[in-house]
Amino acid sequence: MAEQTYLVRGMTCGHCVSAVREEVGKMPGVRHVEVDLESGRVRVEGAGFTGEQIREAVDEAGYALADG
Amino acid sequence: MAEQTYLVRGMTCGHCVSAVREEVGKMPGVRHVEVDLESGRVRVEGAGFTGEQIREAVDEAGYALADG
Repeated sequence: MAEQTYLVRGMTCGHCVSAVREEVGKMPGVRHVEVDLESGRVRVEGAGFTGEQIREAVDEAGYALADG
Repeated sequence: MAEQTYLVRGMTCGHCVSAVREEVGKMPGVRHVEVDLESGRVRVEGAGFTGEQIREAVDEAGYALADG
């Protein structure tokens, strides 16, 4: 099982955190998601998903991954 | 029917706006609610509610009325 950390832009409140957590959390293979509002860091535990899929889930929630 | 405008602190995004709109909008007597994120202004149309009830609904949504 892998752990990946992503940086998400644009989250401003607890609702934003929930929206990102929910969208990323329902992806197949994702076992656990932690979102830190202050830093924008989203830590994802699991296996079998790609960075591109995470990007799409974050986009679906209404936010964007920081590039790089 | 009256129209009252309140100032709400702490809203940062569209989710905040929705939360306030929903809580205030379900109060008895409220016919229409408009929330402006930039200014924090919440315009309430209706009759039969008090400012204190609006304050409680805003609090329930997780925000606070600005005093005065």
